[in-house]
Amino acid sequence: MSEFINQRELEFLLYDLLDSEQLLQLDRFADHDRTIFDEVINTAHRIAAEHYANHYKLADENEPTFDGKTVTTPDAVKTAWKHYAEAGFLSAGKSYEVGGMQLPYTINAAIGAQFAAANISTAAYPFLTGAAANVIEHSGTQEQRQRYLEPMLTGRFSGTMALTEPDVGSSLGDLTTKAILQHDGSYLISGNKIYISGGDQDITENIVHLVLARIEGAPVGSKGISLFIVPKFHVNDDGSLGARNDVQLTGLLHKMGYRGTTSTALNFGENGNCSGYLIGEANKGLRAMFQMMNEARIWVGIGASALGYRGYLESLDYAKNRPQGRKATEKSSHSKPVNIIEHSDVKRMLLAQKAYSEGSMALSLYAAQLVDKAEAGNDGDAAELLELLTPIVKSFPSHYGPRANDLAIQVLAGAGYTREYNLEQLYRDNRLNPIHEGTFGIQSLDLLGRKLWQNGSKGLQLLMAEFQQTVALIEVQPRLKPQLHTFAAHLLTVSSTIETLGGALKQGKVEQALANSALFLDMMGKLVVSWIWLKMAERALVCYGSSELADDQAFVAGKLQAAQYFIQWELPEIEHQARLLTDFDDSCSAMQPDWF
Amino acid sequence: MSEFINQRELEFLLYDLLDSEQLLQLDRFADHDRTIFDEVINTAHRIAAEHYANHYKLADENEPTFDGKTVTTPDAVKTAWKHYAEAGFLSAGKSYEVGGMQLPYTINAAIGAQFAAANISTAAYPFLTGAAANVIEHSGTQEQRQRYLEPMLTGRFSGTMALTEPDVGSSLGDLTTKAILQHDGSYLISGNKIYISGGDQDITENIVHLVLARIEGAPVGSKGISLFIVPKFHVNDDGSLGARNDVQLTGLLHKMGYRGTTSTALNFGENGNCSGYLIGEANKGLRAMFQMMNEARIWVGIGASALGYRGYLESLDYAKNRPQGRKATEKSSHSKPVNIIEHSDVKRMLLAQKAYSEGSMALSLYAAQLVDKAEAGNDGDAAELLELLTPIVKSFPSHYGPRANDLAIQVLAGAGYTREYNLEQLYRDNRLNPIHEGTFGIQSLDLLGRKLWQNGSKGLQLLMAEFQQTVALIEVQPRLKPQLHTFAAHLLTVSSTIETLGGALKQGKVEQALANSALFLDMMGKLVVSWIWLKMAERALVCYGSSELADDQAFVAGKLQAAQYFIQWELPEIEHQARLLTDFDDSCSAMQPDWF
Repeated sequence: MSEFINQRELEFLLYDLLDSEQLLQLDRFADHDRTIFDEVINTAHRIAAEHYANHYKLADENEPTFDGKTVTTPDAVKTAWKHYAEAGFLSAGKSYEVGGMQLPYTINAAIGAQFAAANISTAAYPFLTGAAANVIEHSGTQEQRQRYLEPMLTGRFSGTMALTEPDVGSSLGDLTTKAILQHDGSYLISGNKIYISGGDQDITENIVHLVLARIEGAPVGSKGISLFIVPKFHVNDDGSLGARNDVQLTGLLHKMGYRGTTSTALNFGENGNCSGYLIGEANKGLRAMFQMMNEARIWVGIGASALGYRGYLESLDYAKNRPQGRKATEKSSHSKPVNIIEHSDVKRMLLAQKAYSEGSMALSLYAAQLVDKAEAGNDGDAAELLELLTPIVKSFPSHYGPRANDLAIQVLAGAGYTREYNLEQLYRDNRLNPIHEGTFGIQSLDLLGRKLWQNGSKGLQLLMAEFQQTVALIEVQPRLKPQLHTFAAHLLTVSSTIETLGGALKQGKVEQALANSALFLDMMGKLVVSWIWLKMAERALVCYGSSELADDQAFVAGKLQAAQYFIQWELPEIEHQARLLTDFDDSCSAMQPDWF
Repeated sequence: MSEFINQRELEFLLYDLLDSEQLLQLDRFADHDRTIFDEVINTAHRIAAEHYANHYKLADENEPTFDGKTVTTPDAVKTAWKHYAEAGFLSAGKSYEVGGMQLPYTINAAIGAQFAAANISTAAYPFLTGAAANVIEHSGTQEQRQRYLEPMLTGRFSGTMALTEPDVGSSLGDLTTKAILQHDGSYLISGNKIYISGGDQDITENIVHLVLARIEGAPVGSKGISLFIVPKFHVNDDGSLGARNDVQLTGLLHKMGYRGTTSTALNFGENGNCSGYLIGEANKGLRAMFQMMNEARIWVGIGASALGYRGYLESLDYAKNRPQGRKATEKSSHSKPVNIIEHSDVKRMLLAQKAYSEGSMALSLYAAQLVDKAEAGNDGDAAELLELLTPIVKSFPSHYGPRANDLAIQVLAGAGYTREYNLEQLYRDNRLNPIHEGTFGIQSLDLLGRKLWQNGSKGLQLLMAEFQQTVALIEVQPRLKPQLHTFAAHLLTVSSTIETLGGALKQGKVEQALANSALFLDMMGKLVVSWIWLKMAERALVCYGSSELADDQAFVAGKLQAAQYFIQWELPEIEHQARLLTDFDDSCSAMQPDWF
């Protein structure tokens, strides 16, 4: 059994690539040191191995059930939650004042990567709770924090994001769940929500739903949406549970993967008796929710990277130990078969996985570091850059992570297709990632229609400056010259594509400019991840290039080869995408519904 | 609920594109006419709808079980088999002399496409039986045909292909199953086989395994392999069942998809008592098996196309009926949401599915027609062309079919990810296709290492001549000029790539030339399918271009747009692949096992 994540790689990303120790200079993290970071990460690894990886298959094979009254999840899921909570991970990133460890978001993300790799569907419960807790911490009143946040951070309560409605989907501005103000200042909530992950379960004694709804008389569209705390059970002033609130589970959805996480259809106020509590300002619900959503998008990136990475490690392990076939030049039937890792096409499938998943993980952790710089460091530039990169951080890992898993299956071939191995489950689990928290298409519109131009394109300028800084560093590394050259050439293409599309938008050609936005998102993802690979190659050379340890030499050689692969094999695909974009090619958009 | 296959499309492919009526001029099919073809296809559609599509989900949710003694499959699977057999489809393509209908292979393939689209895992039992029956028909003795083939064609017996062994995989030359000649001319068989589809079941009263084994003393490698008939139950001279043969099911494998078809691990001769009967010549087993394998490869193409196509139809149906979001230019929240088919990115996802699955199906049926020309028509050129195209027919649909299903899920987003819809199952089912009957990597070596150069590259010359013929036809169609131009440009690239790779092979640079064979297979697939799309566009224009019926106009417009999409969006990707190939790029092949 191979590892589900490689600790050396994680260390390289956190310290050699991202220099996470620099975060210690921020006031918020001043009490910490690297030893603490390492201890927390090691503890996470141990708990992930013992209490999450242990039931990866079991949770898939024993989906939560609903008998019309109660949801039942496997005991292992409950035990896992308990250990996560007891280790304090639910509050790892929270302030001391709410009982947290005040750890950097980056370290929290590295913790999360391990749980995601070990068992993403069981890890979803604490992840969702953490995201909901953040909203209450930031937007809730003191009273709300005390009543709901505290028990969430100790693991008594869990949290959900209740956005989607059956007839509305991603078009949140159209949602119809109603909220009517009551004399006591609470609201009467009524409406249906669907695909609510963790919307019911038997793991925690209470569930805190964050529900988007429309206050009676609010403006139509996204400007009339408010956010509410709607607990499954009311919470008394002393923190004990009160009566059941009128939130009913109408049914579980049955997913292809991620099966351990309940996906629910919920009915709020079926009996006219569902109480909700406004959180933040009325009609500003989307803004509060988007804070949670943006965080969730980074977590999707981390999760998709982790699943891709685990599949890479498992298929690598198989390829190193499975003898089959011979080299193309070996003609004798008497010769012994070689391990399949010797075959060029298997190397291709492994190298692509390495390039996708290490690149994705590095990008996701880089984004996590931007969160720290923006929030704890109060760095406006970091915030701008993070805004720009969020759709890419959400989308690149969730597009290329499943591709990595697809290749992992192919390395094992027949075996990879069976449930006797983990690959097919990783593939099924990872397929959710291009969908939830905003599909690939929605991210592409966010990037090309909004983020690129926001605040005078400040984010884009900052990204370009980052590129230039890396280019300057690499110019002194002769071994990276070919990759630098290729990167620079394609960077020009992307720049001129952006100019052309920006020009069209300025001229009001909105539909034409946005028609092929999915191509643009993929192009930007490839460019950004190529840059990440240049950074990784440079860091590997500088940190370990002159080491005489065989392990270090192999590590550097692997990083250089993966950077070469990604930049020479994958990045140039953007040239054709750029042509379609700048030609405003209408092959797709001109298609008419009745022609299909 | 949408259709699982579009009858108009099938008719277009069979008659407008392939002019299948020309087959009536061959002696073997002289008794038929188009009415008979149509009747058979309609009957297939009816049975597929009533007895296959009816339990698509049920068969997935109720996998065959094994209690240590007996395998149990759902009753619906048995009923489906019965109807297929009673309609005579098991012998549809067989000669009158063995009780068959002597239908063209092309028509048989069109029948198969419907069953595959309706329920591929239930359809696998008759498909495998048909392939095994072909081997016995071609290589068996009169006595073997009578004893085994006849009951297979009436549905009493089923058939399997027992090739793979646990330690050998695709490297058949290394297989170790033994055969020892007995006094009565039979052989004592001993060995283990794995991933044998349909290797046990409770559908038919007997199972005829075609087993690859090595006769005692035979040469090592692929030149010492023979093929044996190994029945589950012995068959008496009067056709009744005799004693149980020593073939034991050691266990079922549990697949991600295709769950209705048993995948088995079999033990032959555990008690030293397994009888097998040599079929064809000793030590020529691979040749006989490859006849079956080549046919199976075309069926993989058909199956993968059918699954891709069904996903396209189901996601199209959803997109036409699901209101969500607004046009990019619509700013008012008061406006009504549009159906998602109006969104440009959804059009892209549907158009790509149309291009992949209609292109794949056309290619597969074209290959089936080559079988008819080669076999019934005794046309050597058709046989050469078929040999060249087989790896492409196997691989393009099985690579792009799952991609189509991936896009279908994405069109439905959250809904597509749930088992409440069919898309996720189509995606899981289709994922087997790039693996079985030779992986993508193996097909790529077959194409670039062998088929391209076979018999003085006769197949390639014939393919180029076909291209030229289509180009000549299209030059008079002004609406196809841009596509023709793009196709011609990329054809040049492919030709010069082939020249470069051929030159390297001649110089003995075998490893370098074959290192990136997977890129080459994908490139050839895109070129061939672009040509198929040109042919389809031309035929659509000629046959329906001047029709005034709205349906016909929409049909033609759809074909033109899909041809444009595939040729302008997908085909140009081969330029970068060509560069990597002709540079003999070693980014992958130079990677060393310990660098990963």
